[in-house]
Amino acid sequence: MKDITVGVIGCGYWGPNLIRNFNENQHTALTHICDLNKEKVERMKLRYPHVAVTTDYRELLKDKSLDAVAVATPVSSHYRLVREALEAGKHVLVEKPFTPTVKEAERLVELAHKKGRVLLVDHTFIYTGAVRDIRSRIDAGELGDIFYFDSVRVNLGLFQHDVNVVWDLAPHDLSIMDYLVAEEPVSVVATGAAHTPGGLEDVAYLTLRFRGDLIAHFHVNWMSPVKIRKVIIGGSKKMVVFDDLDPAEKVKIYDKGISLSKANEKTVHQSLVQYRIGDMHAPAIGNREALGVEVEHFADCIRNSKAPLTGGDAGLRVVRVLEAADKSLKKGGVRVSL
Amino acid sequence: MKDITVGVIGCGYWGPNLIRNFNENQHTALTHICDLNKEKVERMKLRYPHVAVTTDYRELLKDKSLDAVAVATPVSSHYRLVREALEAGKHVLVEKPFTPTVKEAERLVELAHKKGRVLLVDHTFIYTGAVRDIRSRIDAGELGDIFYFDSVRVNLGLFQHDVNVVWDLAPHDLSIMDYLVAEEPVSVVATGAAHTPGGLEDVAYLTLRFRGDLIAHFHVNWMSPVKIRKVIIGGSKKMVVFDDLDPAEKVKIYDKGISLSKANEKTVHQSLVQYRIGDMHAPAIGNREALGVEVEHFADCIRNSKAPLTGGDAGLRVVRVLEAADKSLKKGGVRVSL
Amino acid sequence: MKDITVGVIGCGYWGPNLIRNFNENQHTALTHICDLNKEKVERMKLRYPHVAVTTDYRELLKDKSLDAVAVATPVSSHYRLVREALEAGKHVLVEKPFTPTVKEAERLVELAHKKGRVLLVDHTFIYTGAVRDIRSRIDAGELGDIFYFDSVRVNLGLFQHDVNVVWDLAPHDLSIMDYLVAEEPVSVVATGAAHTPGGLEDVAYLTLRFRGDLIAHFHVNWMSPVKIRKVIIGGSKKMVVFDDLDPAEKVKIYDKGISLSKANEKTVHQSLVQYRIGDMHAPAIGNREALGVEVEHFADCIRNSKAPLTGGDAGLRVVRVLEAADKSLKKGGVRVSL
Amino acid sequence: MKDITVGVIGCGYWGPNLIRNFNENQHTALTHICDLNKEKVERMKLRYPHVAVTTDYRELLKDKSLDAVAVATPVSSHYRLVREALEAGKHVLVEKPFTPTVKEAERLVELAHKKGRVLLVDHTFIYTGAVRDIRSRIDAGELGDIFYFDSVRVNLGLFQHDVNVVWDLAPHDLSIMDYLVAEEPVSVVATGAAHTPGGLEDVAYLTLRFRGDLIAHFHVNWMSPVKIRKVIIGGSKKMVVFDDLDPAEKVKIYDKGISLSKANEKTVHQSLVQYRIGDMHAPAIGNREALGVEVEHFADCIRNSKAPLTGGDAGLRVVRVLEAADKSLKKGGVRVSL
Repeated sequence: MKDITVGVIGCGYWGPNLIRNFNENQHTALTHICDLNKEKVERMKLRYPHVAVTTDYRELLKDKSLDAVAVATPVSSHYRLVREALEAGKHVLVEKPFTPTVKEAERLVELAHKKGRVLLVDHTFIYTGAVRDIRSRIDAGELGDIFYFDSVRVNLGLFQHDVNVVWDLAPHDLSIMDYLVAEEPVSVVATGAAHTPGGLEDVAYLTLRFRGDLIAHFHVNWMSPVKIRKVIIGGSKKMVVFDDLDPAEKVKIYDKGISLSKANEKTVHQSLVQYRIGDMHAPAIGNREALGVEVEHFADCIRNSKAPLTGGDAGLRVVRVLEAADKSLKKGGVRVSL
Repeated sequence: MKDITVGVIGCGYWGPNLIRNFNENQHTALTHICDLNKEKVERMKLRYPHVAVTTDYRELLKDKSLDAVAVATPVSSHYRLVREALEAGKHVLVEKPFTPTVKEAERLVELAHKKGRVLLVDHTFIYTGAVRDIRSRIDAGELGDIFYFDSVRVNLGLFQHDVNVVWDLAPHDLSIMDYLVAEEPVSVVATGAAHTPGGLEDVAYLTLRFRGDLIAHFHVNWMSPVKIRKVIIGGSKKMVVFDDLDPAEKVKIYDKGISLSKANEKTVHQSLVQYRIGDMHAPAIGNREALGVEVEHFADCIRNSKAPLTGGDAGLRVVRVLEAADKSLKKGGVRVSL
Repeated sequence: MKDITVGVIGCGYWGPNLIRNFNENQHTALTHICDLNKEKVERMKLRYPHVAVTTDYRELLKDKSLDAVAVATPVSSHYRLVREALEAGKHVLVEKPFTPTVKEAERLVELAHKKGRVLLVDHTFIYTGAVRDIRSRIDAGELGDIFYFDSVRVNLGLFQHDVNVVWDLAPHDLSIMDYLVAEEPVSVVATGAAHTPGGLEDVAYLTLRFRGDLIAHFHVNWMSPVKIRKVIIGGSKKMVVFDDLDPAEKVKIYDKGISLSKANEKTVHQSLVQYRIGDMHAPAIGNREALGVEVEHFADCIRNSKAPLTGGDAGLRVVRVLEAADKSLKKGGVRVSL
Repeated sequence: MKDITVGVIGCGYWGPNLIRNFNENQHTALTHICDLNKEKVERMKLRYPHVAVTTDYRELLKDKSLDAVAVATPVSSHYRLVREALEAGKHVLVEKPFTPTVKEAERLVELAHKKGRVLLVDHTFIYTGAVRDIRSRIDAGELGDIFYFDSVRVNLGLFQHDVNVVWDLAPHDLSIMDYLVAEEPVSVVATGAAHTPGGLEDVAYLTLRFRGDLIAHFHVNWMSPVKIRKVIIGGSKKMVVFDDLDPAEKVKIYDKGISLSKANEKTVHQSLVQYRIGDMHAPAIGNREALGVEVEHFADCIRNSKAPLTGGDAGLRVVRVLEAADKSLKKGGVRVSL
């Protein structure tokens, strides 16, 4: 039964995907579409004639019959829109990055809690079969201790005009890391460069350190001639390569690593390290659209008062790293504590 | 005519390749092989019965008829061996990394100059058809301004016992960068982690900054389940991918990039950046063994009193970055000026 | 101006793509949708509320205001539907394979000619940027004489229930060959096997011979664990690889081949053949949807009374090979003349 | 103990590999090297000064102390050399293809049997870890019934002057099929074309049929711009891809296929076939040199009077297919019974 009414604010790059998924989901009824651009909403009206369209988001907030809103506007407007929506008693799904500042993210988390509303940050990758598969292996101890998390997300474009490449691309990988790695980072070192007049960094590198030996690194780049979307996770028992561009085998589990002769841990280093080269295994991964899974989960959280898998707290953790990375970047790569 | 006599010191991993190439080159006569390990030199004697073998390198230095020595021993012994060889009037080819410290490298450069001997550091990649091809394009202005140099060199092993992954793997890519990029770096930020009792870093990331917008980054890792050897160079006109593991197309030149509308450079950022997606071109690259080319070049430098392409000065520049990177690494990623 | 009214018959696998493209094209107005399955047309009505839907195709043919129909039904019904549509004065776009027999194809070609209507067979690949690019190179003589055309189209499924793997998959590659190669084949040898109770071949190999040295080969397979879509074209001057699954470089032009020393053509064979290994070049290929280009071309042919690029004659040539291949297949691989 | 003395006849492309392996094997002592070309044997003498070299193979056959010979000469000389060697009481390892005719192969098999000597045909691939791994899975029933065996071996060159591409390249894949597939083929259909004055086919396609539904196909080509070495084996339970050019994962086992609903086998076809898409598994494959394993096996057969894994009978089975394929090829693709 389509018992949850939803309105979508923002019809830019991602909004139409939200609209399509809310329209198709069996539990959600798409009732409103909003965008500042009149032409855009009119085009949407042609495709979804049963939906009310407007250029004023306040119409949605005022509508008592509307249960939830999805916010897919530029990040600078997230705080205001999400705050007003929560205050109007709506459940909210909001695009990543959650907010431009940690302070705003904290306030929204608090507000959602106070209002008892579901606040879900659209960390889409968490709803893919690939990331779920990796998580279940980590939970089962299959990888052992996590040694490193290495991510590369590069391609030519899409240049953003309001945020740099870190805010544009890193949220994807930071949210994956946040979901997969149990620990929280303690510091960030970020380096990068800008090659256009506007001064927004188009290439950047982030290193995150944790309490132990774990290290995480993120390479994001808008100026690469080739497209790469690859995460390598090194564990003490097994290692994983997640290649999002491989149509057939997105996740590969390698039974490879090193063995240490425990007894002699104190003795000379050279004799300790031995390589282990075992089989590779690529599990069959379902190809259901992640956003469909997410929308279903959002509906489930609303119907059953559950905490979402990627709630405001997850959004906040990612923003915390982004804010610190920006600070490090601006100072030429100083280490910033979290 | 085999008119240059050469002795090789060190029969470990790389020494046998030097031995084979000096034996086969038309200008060099392999006359001595030396290693501390008696068994190793005896095995070499079986394969090269016409060569004198010894476990004492001083025998080579004392031999007046010997023109040159190649030093392929652990890096900690480079300074002493190269110094004594130069003082004995020999020309020297020495493995990379050149020396463990900048100070030692500087002294050897000075000594070689004083003695008027050829001192060549074995930056093998500079002698590959692939790197030569890229250099000639940069020289011809085909790439335009260099925006970034991004290198990844990861695989499982080979764990070294005396140096960390930076000293083991980064010299390859630093020497390539040194050869390709006209500018010298001004600072290094290095992060990394060690996951074995011995405490040697097995994964590390280096960022180099230059006077302008150029940024260089190096990812080295001994603990990767997959082998990657890839350099991406972003230029204002064209971009290059050098994939050393691609047997067919090692170098790909992409006619891709961004165009800026110059007239409006001061106006709003959004309207300026436009993508340019053109053809890709993979030049045929000769597959002559790089070490053979290098040995030939070494002989040519000796015979004609030329300065080698990868002389002590190039070795010194690489060691300068390595030393600074180690310093940064030990301090958790502080920026170290060069 | 949307001045051509179009109705689509068949809402199975491909029909919805035709519907979407006719709806979006600036010159065509989608006015009717038809399928035997009532549920399917009702689902379409939801998405396209402005369109008349029906389960009886005769309603379309009777509608005087309807200019054209697209037939996307099982191949066994093509002849009857296309014939009736042409007789009703409609222009027709029909799915490939055109018809189940040569005789029917010939009759439809004749009928379209007699009626002066546009008859376009949906050989979609001919409308891709990749195939167009290759054709323009062949026309310009860049490849020299064509030596061979080798095609592989394999994957797991989609098992058809009415036709074997040859009729299901080979039309794609036969139409590409028909478009690229100037000559017509003179004979077919086909081998294959069936591994399911129904007896429909799920793997097959076709060899086509021409008047000269040209040979064409087609591998089609429904039972492959991996998906391959690759055409290799060997020319006397250059060679082409068209890999439809490569998202970045679908077409690669190799400056490779052999050179023959003409003067000695009569002398011993061994001294004549020399390899030529030159550069590889991957042209930038536009990524406009082929079906959109095709629909536009269909409209253009109707408006300007042009002969379509993939008319009934092209469809007939492909069916001629298919029919002969089936005959060869049934007889265990005898050569069948065309 | 090096208790088996071996002489190698033929120092062309492959001979030096045999020489190196016989020299290094712990059980075999390389004592003679022979080639018609004086220069070649003299060059070998420099590398192996302890070995007797000659341009007259009869010297080897006359030497009573010589236990075995390896024949790596052009195929046209195999019959005479192997026959004389067997008659002289030598054990023989001979290059593939075994002989140019079935008749000769049969005689040599008979002769070896009569003389009680080991006769091993150098089907090198059978001694690779990859092929062994696949065989063990087939033996264990892991693949179920074999549906098809599809092989592609293409590249630019090496043009042979005495045999066409079928005799040059297909023996590799025919020997792999012969080893992996329990059944023997009953017929061959071969098509191909020649594009050089000499008239030797440079591209060819072979289809083999067996008693049941199994089909095997071989694509060999000297004129391909890209190098492919791939075998796909489809089984009723699992499927295998053997990519000899993949440095990391040569063998991939796919848990993919179709399931048939047995109960309804007689009912309509459409409801029967269901896809099964499971995991992929790439076993770790040892990288020991296949020729080293083969030489060891040859020595073992001699020392322990064992029948070799790839004896004259295996060589004969491959020649039987080659001869029939040639016959089919010459007649433009007629089916030839075996």
